[in-house]
Amino acid sequence: MGNCLVAQSGGPTAVINASLAGVIKANQLDPLYERVLGGIHGIEGVLAGKLYDLTDIPESELEILKQTPSSALGTCRYKLKRGQDADFTRLMEVMDENDIDTMFYIGGNDSMDTVDALSEWAASSGSSKRFIGIPKTVDNDLVPPDHCPGFPSAAKLANLITHATRLDYDAYTRPEVFVLETMGRDAGWLAASCCLTGDVDLLVLSEVAFDRDAFLDRVQAKMDETGSCYIVVSEGARYADGAYLSAGESANDGFAHAVLGGAALTLKQMIVDAGIAPRGVVQDLSRAARSSNFAQSKVDVTEAFDLGISAHMRSADPTFTAKVVGVARGADADGGYEARYFAGPASEFANFVKEFPREWILGDYQGVSAEALDYFRPLIAGEPAIIYGANGLPKTIKPYNLR
Amino acid sequence: MGNCLVAQSGGPTAVINASLAGVIKANQLDPLYERVLGGIHGIEGVLAGKLYDLTDIPESELEILKQTPSSALGTCRYKLKRGQDADFTRLMEVMDENDIDTMFYIGGNDSMDTVDALSEWAASSGSSKRFIGIPKTVDNDLVPPDHCPGFPSAAKLANLITHATRLDYDAYTRPEVFVLETMGRDAGWLAASCCLTGDVDLLVLSEVAFDRDAFLDRVQAKMDETGSCYIVVSEGARYADGAYLSAGESANDGFAHAVLGGAALTLKQMIVDAGIAPRGVVQDLSRAARSSNFAQSKVDVTEAFDLGISAHMRSADPTFTAKVVGVARGADADGGYEARYFAGPASEFANFVKEFPREWILGDYQGVSAEALDYFRPLIAGEPAIIYGANGLPKTIKPYNLR
Repeated sequence: MGNCLVAQSGGPTAVINASLAGVIKANQLDPLYERVLGGIHGIEGVLAGKLYDLTDIPESELEILKQTPSSALGTCRYKLKRGQDADFTRLMEVMDENDIDTMFYIGGNDSMDTVDALSEWAASSGSSKRFIGIPKTVDNDLVPPDHCPGFPSAAKLANLITHATRLDYDAYTRPEVFVLETMGRDAGWLAASCCLTGDVDLLVLSEVAFDRDAFLDRVQAKMDETGSCYIVVSEGARYADGAYLSAGESANDGFAHAVLGGAALTLKQMIVDAGIAPRGVVQDLSRAARSSNFAQSKVDVTEAFDLGISAHMRSADPTFTAKVVGVARGADADGGYEARYFAGPASEFANFVKEFPREWILGDYQGVSAEALDYFRPLIAGEPAIIYGANGLPKTIKPYNLR
Repeated sequence: MGNCLVAQSGGPTAVINASLAGVIKANQLDPLYERVLGGIHGIEGVLAGKLYDLTDIPESELEILKQTPSSALGTCRYKLKRGQDADFTRLMEVMDENDIDTMFYIGGNDSMDTVDALSEWAASSGSSKRFIGIPKTVDNDLVPPDHCPGFPSAAKLANLITHATRLDYDAYTRPEVFVLETMGRDAGWLAASCCLTGDVDLLVLSEVAFDRDAFLDRVQAKMDETGSCYIVVSEGARYADGAYLSAGESANDGFAHAVLGGAALTLKQMIVDAGIAPRGVVQDLSRAARSSNFAQSKVDVTEAFDLGISAHMRSADPTFTAKVVGVARGADADGGYEARYFAGPASEFANFVKEFPREWILGDYQGVSAEALDYFRPLIAGEPAIIYGANGLPKTIKPYNLR
């Protein structure tokens, strides 16, 4: 019986450690592997031979690991791609040295491509080593699954802050606009989810080319109608020519302001310069949205954990490699939301970006359709029972505590 | 038996509605007043005669009001000052028209000054009308009380986001700095509180004149030592000449960058320009910190509610006017934190700003003393049992639901 390796890659999420806990817990329930070894800082640490033994982490610590945000094992931006034979060879050496026959990789598109490339390389070199992916991404842009672990908790925090800041904004009578910015460079899922609160007046997504005049018309109309305008913008919002709003106003729009900062700051300045409102407030969720252990979605943390379990269990089949596990949307007996778990080829998870569906986007920046809200609603439901420390903060566990 | 008036003013907090709920609840327990009338949008709405009857809000709705962030009655920036006789006369008219003999005003320094001015005016014009203050401010800068309602919850959210983003930041190996910005134009309490997490490498407060070279030396030393540097800055941080960091770099520092945005963005750019790190991440808590119903401190919501009760109860004494209630720090039988409630002259709450104590600030941007941490620790303790809606968000109640 050999060992398995588990590592994390790409941007952290609020539940990426729940998937890690799932793999560890599954091996305690059914020890398919003698040891569960954790690679530190993704593939970078693995190549350097930096492995921790995670096999016997007690249940009490696994529960805290599930509510610890960010990647407990550390992460990396290093991409292992086809053709990097020296890296591939080195990885196989590390696996051999540590008697590892199976690697679980928790990450986004790029990491799933790594899983695919490593599986191919192993097959072509006659190795029986296996590579299995567990998805995560707050961007929610992987194609085969209904949604990705990490996204529901990010959406929950975005919803919480949208509603709270909308109430804050509404307390005033003075004329100003409010602009909230969410992560999402290429897909507007997170920004769109904020519409669930019912608080969003105008929504600016990366999926629709930004039209300055049309947008300002809508802001003016909303201010005229209600005296207020609450706007949510995705960081990746861009003009028809592909220029990001966050880079400042387009050179050919008749203005030439040097606006540094994000898309929200640009929109606020644009509105003020147009004389529609004398001032505006900007709230950038930035990193807080993806690492919010204090606002995990119960659905999300459950599914992330279960995907870790599922990946481990499926690996009992010795032919299970080059595969990624995922969540499909099912229904319970009452028609309510229920997760269904599946596995598919890593190549399908790796090579496509799932944009927010155009048919769910209402015209004139008016938000999203009822169908979109039906999609989002069950994902942010429920709150896990958080274990708090004496300092009033949720308990967390750090990599170096993982022995 | 006359009626009482209650209104909210200044910047919202996460618990300002708990004080409102306290006044309403107290009058249900001991109906000193026939009706509890709420003035909308602070003194602005009161002058316009916009009053809502809050007397009989049921317990179930009061519980939701306690967890509703922002000012449920709306707020204003309008300051009622000595000498504005027309406004004073109009206010007395509105009070007469509505048979109001006592006004409770929930707000910060300026509102407590309004309480003082109105009391003086009433006394000098032979009126028996009374004016009583209930404090709130996330800035924590009122002098007589140990701390102000609103601050502990803001500090709790700031602590939650500090710890979560520190874990996120630590997951990476690449060299970059992280800069978190908190509210606090004139007092650094909120920024300083983040040190409770143990995650803050360098702290920049408005209480200490910013020294660019000394600061960059510390950043360089921290990067050399650990490869990372997590910085917290108060929005009001400023140079010795009084220029705010948020206005960009000082003109006489040898650089001339036009940096828009906040203090955090300025620090990040300064560090990158100095070649200490190739990049940095900025997280501005902005409005999220003060209106976080999902991260209320139990101590805070309890004290805010109790101060509303206390103000109402004390007003059974007909000579109780020109007073503000507050929290002093007591100890329970085991030496643990316990709130003590007191009342003092409104003038003492109105005319001073309590800066973060210089003797609690460590040199070289190294954070705060153990005494400061002992001060902060009990304030963020405990989590109230939040009532969630079917949409997965904490239930809230809006002014227009208050009949």
